[in-house]
Amino acid sequence: MSLHANPTQHLGEFDLIARLTDGLRLGNDVVRGVGDDAAVLQWPVDQHLVVTCDAQVEGTHFLRSFSSPEQIGRRALSVNLSDLAAMGARPKFALVSLIVSKPLDLGWLDQMYAGLRAQADAFGVSIVGGNIASSDGPTCIDITVFGQVPAGGAIRRDGGHAGDRLYVSGELGSAVAGLASLRKEPSGVPEDAVAEVRLAYCDPQPQVALGEALGASHAVTSMIDISDGLSSDLHHICMQSGVGAVVDEQDLPISLATRAMGEAFGVDALDWALHGGDAYQLLFSISPDRESKLTSLPHAFSAQLHPIGWLTTPDQGVRLRHADATTDFLPPSGWDHLKGDPA
Amino acid sequence: MSLHANPTQHLGEFDLIARLTDGLRLGNDVVRGVGDDAAVLQWPVDQHLVVTCDAQVEGTHFLRSFSSPEQIGRRALSVNLSDLAAMGARPKFALVSLIVSKPLDLGWLDQMYAGLRAQADAFGVSIVGGNIASSDGPTCIDITVFGQVPAGGAIRRDGGHAGDRLYVSGELGSAVAGLASLRKEPSGVPEDAVAEVRLAYCDPQPQVALGEALGASHAVTSMIDISDGLSSDLHHICMQSGVGAVVDEQDLPISLATRAMGEAFGVDALDWALHGGDAYQLLFSISPDRESKLTSLPHAFSAQLHPIGWLTTPDQGVRLRHADATTDFLPPSGWDHLKGDPA
Repeated sequence: MSLHANPTQHLGEFDLIARLTDGLRLGNDVVRGVGDDAAVLQWPVDQHLVVTCDAQVEGTHFLRSFSSPEQIGRRALSVNLSDLAAMGARPKFALVSLIVSKPLDLGWLDQMYAGLRAQADAFGVSIVGGNIASSDGPTCIDITVFGQVPAGGAIRRDGGHAGDRLYVSGELGSAVAGLASLRKEPSGVPEDAVAEVRLAYCDPQPQVALGEALGASHAVTSMIDISDGLSSDLHHICMQSGVGAVVDEQDLPISLATRAMGEAFGVDALDWALHGGDAYQLLFSISPDRESKLTSLPHAFSAQLHPIGWLTTPDQGVRLRHADATTDFLPPSGWDHLKGDPA
Repeated sequence: MSLHANPTQHLGEFDLIARLTDGLRLGNDVVRGVGDDAAVLQWPVDQHLVVTCDAQVEGTHFLRSFSSPEQIGRRALSVNLSDLAAMGARPKFALVSLIVSKPLDLGWLDQMYAGLRAQADAFGVSIVGGNIASSDGPTCIDITVFGQVPAGGAIRRDGGHAGDRLYVSGELGSAVAGLASLRKEPSGVPEDAVAEVRLAYCDPQPQVALGEALGASHAVTSMIDISDGLSSDLHHICMQSGVGAVVDEQDLPISLATRAMGEAFGVDALDWALHGGDAYQLLFSISPDRESKLTSLPHAFSAQLHPIGWLTTPDQGVRLRHADATTDFLPPSGWDHLKGDPA
């Protein structure tokens, strides 16, 4: 029941739901999808249900001037898939809750939802329901995803041990470099480098297949996705596992494009790599005696893995080791959704 | 990553999550709750997973001046539990996604979340995760709930047949009467009547146990919860089941308090009962040869059921029968989340 006057729009809620969800591709395990009070889903024996949700709020997480509507839709799903990947889970279903600002921008919504659907199809995810509400505020895309892991096979944040090796699944800092380039056009940076970092920000690729493979390897002791920044997310693992860590500065994978952007903006690209959010890479620990399991992964996976340090005893704290072998404490200076950008 | 300046708040996201979720009561089936990338849940063999989400947006669905923070929190969960009830499902888990307006009103959030937690405890629901984001717009409480039904036992909207009897689970129109009384103080209505309808609006009771009992009876052919209004929700059943319906005007359960409010506002209480949203009662159909199963339900359930009409062949349309036995078409004039209030 609206507390406000009728916005006199012609399109009704159910018209819009029908328009957006027409012909959704559904898995055989969807007993009842969009169109009832709730969706009904089959769940396989011996699999645990893995669930998470994440909201993208206009003005806080995205701007229409920075990303295409399709990218915004894809990204809203990708950030959720990344959380499932970090548990070693296989994505199965999604609920899409839209809070749309008035007046309704139907063209934008159509394109955003098309991007979301395409990403769902690409990852074999059935969109089984959701909700649409209107708001006087910004548009919010709030997605809940459902994945499965073999019972007991979820990779948590609290299983790391001192002595475990730390890995990341790819480039760090490029997304935050991309955001910087969207806020202010960089000068003196090659066009393709700018395009590369912008794509990292606008259209992150969740490491779903890798996450599932790492889970199946039974070698990984803890894992998290780097959404808030390496420093903050590493602290989550250390706090929950009761360990310290040392990260080797020179082992951090930072692309040439990110370094070029750092120079253009007078920012140390290392800071972006350490504290920049939105990377959506996996950070995980593995016991040294099982590290060889990584080389038996498909080459496409093993080639993207970068060892960046170790877990230590908790008394060591979380440290960064410089090229000269000296170390400093590495504070959790990444993104905080209430405090805003790192200083 | 915020696109805006740091709002210079002292409380971080993780502090707030810890504050709100400290000591959550969890079922034995929660393998991993709040505090990881995703929650991990056990799922019983032979049970289907039933999932839905619904958002409460400040200014659209609630005003802080109309309801206490505890009521707003309880209601945000209740409207979701009502959807599970309408499938005949037993609620098990919830994810709570908060989009909080800046600056943070911590006292209000604490109380709202306390109401939400109390309602979760009352219904045996484990809050297993969620998300917190900040916004320049209104506060939104977006909840996803997970329920279970025996495989094949979910009650859908599309199973009604011509000849089935139509029932509702309780009073109609009281919630919208309550909203009217919050918008404008009524004159000449007894205080307890005003309190009664306001409570119906601010703190609806989801018909969870009844919904599960109706599911277990194997007698109900279709069911929906009346969130948009009887007329609109009956149309959903009729459209999906391929039937028509006739509703007996004089059989609609309308309380004395609602009638008194109607008189005070010069509104026909029947219109509220037919088209008013937020009732959160169950509307269901049952084949006549199984109607006796309703009397074998526990008395607390059977006593609250009101037969209000029948499903018919689709050529009859959806009709309202007046006391003089004449009929009129009953249009779906309830609430539409995009169009706003019914005229």
